[in-house]
Amino acid sequence: MDQQLHFLTVATPDLDAARSFYGGGLGWSPVVDVPDEVIFYQVAPGMLLGFFLADKFAQDLGLDVAPSPAGVTLSHNVGSPDEARAVVAAMARAGARVLKQPQESAFGGILHALVSDPVGVTWEIAHNPGWRILDDGTVSLR
Amino acid sequence: MDQQLHFLTVATPDLDAARSFYGGGLGWSPVVDVPDEVIFYQVAPGMLLGFFLADKFAQDLGLDVAPSPAGVTLSHNVGSPDEARAVVAAMARAGARVLKQPQESAFGGILHALVSDPVGVTWEIAHNPGWRILDDGTVSLR
Repeated sequence: MDQQLHFLTVATPDLDAARSFYGGGLGWSPVVDVPDEVIFYQVAPGMLLGFFLADKFAQDLGLDVAPSPAGVTLSHNVGSPDEARAVVAAMARAGARVLKQPQESAFGGILHALVSDPVGVTWEIAHNPGWRILDDGTVSLR
Repeated sequence: MDQQLHFLTVATPDLDAARSFYGGGLGWSPVVDVPDEVIFYQVAPGMLLGFFLADKFAQDLGLDVAPSPAGVTLSHNVGSPDEARAVVAAMARAGARVLKQPQESAFGGILHALVSDPVGVTWEIAHNPGWRILDDGTVSLR
């Protein structure tokens, strides 16, 4: 199995809330938007983040009810502490709930915040001076 | 907020099980492996999949106990139905549990299977002839 993730799909009880937050609030553009079914946003080269209506997500997995997203955090890194604060403020204005205001994380030198989107996805917004993406897409952490 | 995901971090009760499955079983190489803390694998250009020890994940979120991963599916696309079957078989040999054997999905023309890794992450292994990644990283779905 190649070391590749192509889609991250999230069970979403309210697809309109996801569209309104990511599209309306944050200005993201979908690759595909099928009302009452699924919305996909491209979030990395070759990789999509999908919001899939919870009923259909559950059906696909053979469950009666789709569980809410839990036990995972999506992280978005930015170039400076000020930019992290600005992104958290923009997410809050768009309707997200701030779980942890921007602050020094347990890992030294990293500023981070935690935010819950309106459909229950936890985002970490972080500035990590030791993180960067090289020209070929390789992630460097030191 | 830019339309970018940089890390997907999964609460993991047993980091050794994750290492053994992805590293030992599937042959993946970590970017970082900190015993009893976190393992990161690069899974797309600029994007890491992290397994974070559940206790520390919970602490970071201010929870008493970290929830198991739920309500999300990670998808890995391959080039043919035979390749999908081979990946599912390889995952099963490495210790994953097959939730749905490779079969036609609810979306016409797509073969898919669902597999649970040893730490509770659900993977979809799929062959979708209408999906491809263009040279610049743009995902095309038709």
